[in-house]
Amino acid sequence: MKPMVGIIMGSDSDLPVMQEAAKILDEFQISYELTVVSAHRTPERLFEYAKSAKEKGLKVIIAGAGGAAHLPGMVASLTTLPVIGVPVKTRTLNGIDSLYSIVQMPPGIPVATVAINGAKNAGILASSIIGTFDEDISKKVEEYKNNLRETVKEKANKLEKIKYDKYLESMN
Amino acid sequence: MKPMVGIIMGSDSDLPVMQEAAKILDEFQISYELTVVSAHRTPERLFEYAKSAKEKGLKVIIAGAGGAAHLPGMVASLTTLPVIGVPVKTRTLNGIDSLYSIVQMPPGIPVATVAINGAKNAGILASSIIGTFDEDISKKVEEYKNNLRETVKEKANKLEKIKYDKYLESMN
Amino acid sequence: MKPMVGIIMGSDSDLPVMQEAAKILDEFQISYELTVVSAHRTPERLFEYAKSAKEKGLKVIIAGAGGAAHLPGMVASLTTLPVIGVPVKTRTLNGIDSLYSIVQMPPGIPVATVAINGAKNAGILASSIIGTFDEDISKKVEEYKNNLRETVKEKANKLEKIKYDKYLESMN
Amino acid sequence: MKPMVGIIMGSDSDLPVMQEAAKILDEFQISYELTVVSAHRTPERLFEYAKSAKEKGLKVIIAGAGGAAHLPGMVASLTTLPVIGVPVKTRTLNGIDSLYSIVQMPPGIPVATVAINGAKNAGILASSIIGTFDEDISKKVEEYKNNLRETVKEKANKLEKIKYDKYLESMN
Amino acid sequence: MKPMVGIIMGSDSDLPVMQEAAKILDEFQISYELTVVSAHRTPERLFEYAKSAKEKGLKVIIAGAGGAAHLPGMVASLTTLPVIGVPVKTRTLNGIDSLYSIVQMPPGIPVATVAINGAKNAGILASSIIGTFDEDISKKVEEYKNNLRETVKEKANKLEKIKYDKYLESMN
Amino acid sequence: MKPMVGIIMGSDSDLPVMQEAAKILDEFQISYELTVVSAHRTPERLFEYAKSAKEKGLKVIIAGAGGAAHLPGMVASLTTLPVIGVPVKTRTLNGIDSLYSIVQMPPGIPVATVAINGAKNAGILASSIIGTFDEDISKKVEEYKNNLRETVKEKANKLEKIKYDKYLESMN
Amino acid sequence: MKPMVGIIMGSDSDLPVMQEAAKILDEFQISYELTVVSAHRTPERLFEYAKSAKEKGLKVIIAGAGGAAHLPGMVASLTTLPVIGVPVKTRTLNGIDSLYSIVQMPPGIPVATVAINGAKNAGILASSIIGTFDEDISKKVEEYKNNLRETVKEKANKLEKIKYDKYLESMN
Amino acid sequence: MKPMVGIIMGSDSDLPVMQEAAKILDEFQISYELTVVSAHRTPERLFEYAKSAKEKGLKVIIAGAGGAAHLPGMVASLTTLPVIGVPVKTRTLNGIDSLYSIVQMPPGIPVATVAINGAKNAGILASSIIGTFDEDISKKVEEYKNNLRETVKEKANKLEKIKYDKYLESMN
Repeated sequence: MKPMVGIIMGSDSDLPVMQEAAKILDEFQISYELTVVSAHRTPERLFEYAKSAKEKGLKVIIAGAGGAAHLPGMVASLTTLPVIGVPVKTRTLNGIDSLYSIVQMPPGIPVATVAINGAKNAGILASSIIGTFDEDISKKVEEYKNNLRETVKEKANKLEKIKYDKYLESMN
Repeated sequence: MKPMVGIIMGSDSDLPVMQEAAKILDEFQISYELTVVSAHRTPERLFEYAKSAKEKGLKVIIAGAGGAAHLPGMVASLTTLPVIGVPVKTRTLNGIDSLYSIVQMPPGIPVATVAINGAKNAGILASSIIGTFDEDISKKVEEYKNNLRETVKEKANKLEKIKYDKYLESMN
Repeated sequence: MKPMVGIIMGSDSDLPVMQEAAKILDEFQISYELTVVSAHRTPERLFEYAKSAKEKGLKVIIAGAGGAAHLPGMVASLTTLPVIGVPVKTRTLNGIDSLYSIVQMPPGIPVATVAINGAKNAGILASSIIGTFDEDISKKVEEYKNNLRETVKEKANKLEKIKYDKYLESMN
Repeated sequence: MKPMVGIIMGSDSDLPVMQEAAKILDEFQISYELTVVSAHRTPERLFEYAKSAKEKGLKVIIAGAGGAAHLPGMVASLTTLPVIGVPVKTRTLNGIDSLYSIVQMPPGIPVATVAINGAKNAGILASSIIGTFDEDISKKVEEYKNNLRETVKEKANKLEKIKYDKYLESMN
Repeated sequence: MKPMVGIIMGSDSDLPVMQEAAKILDEFQISYELTVVSAHRTPERLFEYAKSAKEKGLKVIIAGAGGAAHLPGMVASLTTLPVIGVPVKTRTLNGIDSLYSIVQMPPGIPVATVAINGAKNAGILASSIIGTFDEDISKKVEEYKNNLRETVKEKANKLEKIKYDKYLESMN
Repeated sequence: MKPMVGIIMGSDSDLPVMQEAAKILDEFQISYELTVVSAHRTPERLFEYAKSAKEKGLKVIIAGAGGAAHLPGMVASLTTLPVIGVPVKTRTLNGIDSLYSIVQMPPGIPVATVAINGAKNAGILASSIIGTFDEDISKKVEEYKNNLRETVKEKANKLEKIKYDKYLESMN
Repeated sequence: MKPMVGIIMGSDSDLPVMQEAAKILDEFQISYELTVVSAHRTPERLFEYAKSAKEKGLKVIIAGAGGAAHLPGMVASLTTLPVIGVPVKTRTLNGIDSLYSIVQMPPGIPVATVAINGAKNAGILASSIIGTFDEDISKKVEEYKNNLRETVKEKANKLEKIKYDKYLESMN
Repeated sequence: MKPMVGIIMGSDSDLPVMQEAAKILDEFQISYELTVVSAHRTPERLFEYAKSAKEKGLKVIIAGAGGAAHLPGMVASLTTLPVIGVPVKTRTLNGIDSLYSIVQMPPGIPVATVAINGAKNAGILASSIIGTFDEDISKKVEEYKNNLRETVKEKANKLEKIKYDKYLESMN
């Protein structure tokens, strides 16, 4: 099956974070491809990837990067597909650098930015975007949200029944 | 024509910023509705708006707010449509408060965040999303980007021909 | 006994922090209820909770949340009860995101914000508020502060008597 | 009529901000006193004010200060009344210094902090607190919120009827 | 011997940081007293301490505190002695809150602020101040700085002789 | 009369801020010298100034600088006199850069840092330091603080008598 | 004469800042070219520019950009020439976003970053780099620094002779 | 062989970070010297080092420091050689203090600043600068970048072949 979503990251050290996007797409049975594209170490590869993304049939690109995180913005400059940026947490600035580098794009070239390390949300947002033309996926997002709600309610019920110290014990 | 995009803002004082989203949609001939929905002053209205958005035929929602900016996130919690958040600049914290309140959403409920005061980019991102299923709109986004490129090139040509002080004079 | 204080949190992962509020109310023998209400995952539940809070006899609501922390502000928009917000520390931004999302409320809808992870102070503040009409509780708050004072004085006495290195040893 | 709320500020240069608290109390017909108490320039006065506040019949204290803003926290250390802190915007750090100095109180001594320059919300929060034992005031807060809602709806109606550029013109 | 320097801290949990000031004074043989004075938990004690400091013969006060760190500023408001403030690192905001609360004092009431956790430097600064009228102490400060210089030079010599990897090994 | 205080600044553009230190010393009749010493543009001059400061009879040095503000710290490294640092507000970072560059000195070399643009407080702190050995100056500082207190009390009296709107009018 | 330095900027709105780099090169008689290259609006142009820079004979590239400032880093990824990055001040985040986007480059691809709006220093740094192989330019940099020193000394002399208030008057 | 690059650091505790610069120069076979020079503890040594650097034949200086990091800027003020500054991460402010102290230099005295803890990039930048007149070194930098590219491509190939969970396993 041709991939609908491209998940790329600046370094394989971002994979522990970025796998969350893949997991959501797995869960929603949305086809995707996942690879490493470094804006700074493989700029030509970045160009080719972004320029050919739409022709390959991709609908959305999820790009994660940390520090001076140029990958999402550069991909966005080279395609008309919606690009979702995931600011990866950094050791020195906690990902504030990544966040500013990704979200503060100039007029004309948006990047749909999610929370620092928010790869799961990037997967859900990509699914919502696909859901704008694919009702099945839209339904799956809805079910997912329903499940979240039910999980919260179950926890709430439990917490209302037992005292908080018991609940905390049960969490360990 | 039924609107495809809903543009909402927390206060009419956000309109000078948020009109840029509308202008882009006007330019791309994408139908939209535009109104004020305050998460804090009209929470019921927020609920109704978000819950009925998909049935009304909206494909994307653009929500702008400043300060403790809860509008985009709360709308996102109540719909499966992609929600684009515009952090509006504030007088005290320059919009950092708006940015953090919008982008740092918990797992499960993403908001596609653009730059502080980035309403124009919100309009373009909404168009890109619609472009995932509407090739006409996708083409318009491409043309728009081509125009940006040509404008830059013209300026570059001019600047390469005349000295920078002349160029600066010609800008005033 | 009907609860006078409602303690809610966005996720059960906030419980290790938020239990401190409950402990203070236990100490002051103020009745309370404690549960999970997620602004983003259970928005309807949030609505019901906040709308019915006053009729149920609650006098104060303590709401804790992290990241794009919308729970305290959204509850405040749906009730006339005083709402105390507890910004929960986050892994990426240390709770600055939570703090700004909670404290920077727009004119008309205040949230009484305490320190990051300041759930104990939320409990004391709730008690002070109840103390405005219940002299017994006011007295308990006073005694609590007196005890704090005495504890500091004892430590000061000890530290003035033995050298700091001995004191530090005795702390371990 | 004996004042129920004490509004104090570190300097009369805070009055343009702090008057908003007084205006709300005027609107809700809640009696108040308003004066200058400087933690740093009149520490004895601060002591006397805070120590006698409860005996004088005050129910809530609103304290505004900027920079190393110690007034709200020091008052809170000297009374069991709920203290609302208003961080006043500063020229150099925009009020972040005021915010941190007021909100980051240690365990035991809470200050109910509102937004930077959020004196109006301080007035509303004080009213909500008084509303916990005075149903008349609670009703007035409710009416106030209802009016906010209606005002937003009127603006929304207007904005839905005329195009945004006309609306913007009408705002000037 | 009557103490010349008063070292106070808001809580005994600040002692691991604040002992560095005492160690320097021990080294320079400057008499000091060291105790806990909490601005928020023992405000009367703070008053008494600060008001009597000069009469007792103290020449400088070193005050350390964390979070909404009011101790140094409040002491400074109650004495004409120079007050040195040590912002103690906090778990949530790393001591930025402490720094801003201490350094951003209003015109009229200075606090001589040192680095976050900079208690050693507070001790040295106190010694420099005493050195303005006591040449013996001034000499000790000079010797101390000379020693620092020699230590650096020895390390530099060693590092210039052996390769950096050997040097790093020798550090463990 | 031989100067007791040296006031230096990195650039004459800092003079509008730094003159406040001189004004206080004028008021307290403390002799001072005032000049420009740039750490970066006149490093040799910096060396000579700092190395000869004590021999010239200076007791305290006040050094103001903005941005990568190295002047106070470099002077402190070259003298045993107490050095007071004034972080000057900058156009881009509001003086946070100046503050961090001045206050975050390494162990061994303290700078007594005051608020951003806090030159007046630098003057008062210098006077307090001189007051440790000169009782006349200590008295003048006390009178100054007394005057501050009286001024606040007069304003408080006025504000308690007339309504805040009248007071605000009278301020213009 | 073939240009030795390439000055590029993301937008002609950066020209008022970036011209300072050109002015310094004019002063040092170093040949340069100056144009607009937008990483986001003209990514192909960026590629061509950076890939051909060395062959064209450029020795250093100065790149200025604001917000999510990717230009300097992307150029650095495509050439082995030293690239100097100038973070341009932004309206919302004052250039912190630009600074982080430029300086926080990943291992392997450095950008020599100067201060926010520090285009003049970018010109001087480029000259220093050229000075590593061209002694004439090195001399010019030295003379420039000598002039800076003399200017400071003249100002210092003047300020030492007349009182600060006269000096301030003479500055207007 | 006479050293071409001087690597200096404010303290030997910076060596674990700064060794990365040396490693790169080792790899490129560029001669260097490495030592400790403290701006604050050995100011005379700093003067001598910087003043003699050019005569000794150095072409570039790499200076690393943390906190109020004055070393790079002070060296830059005393030489016409290009100076590369490495802001070392600090325990309290994560290196933001170091970054601001190094990058925000005043007009006239640039420091080529790299990322927080970016010593490897400092080494590469020094090599690029030497590469402006030494084609061999320029080639080595190019090969280095080529290797980076190939490494990324290999990782990308591997990640495209096996599923991400296998890849993550293989990383441990």
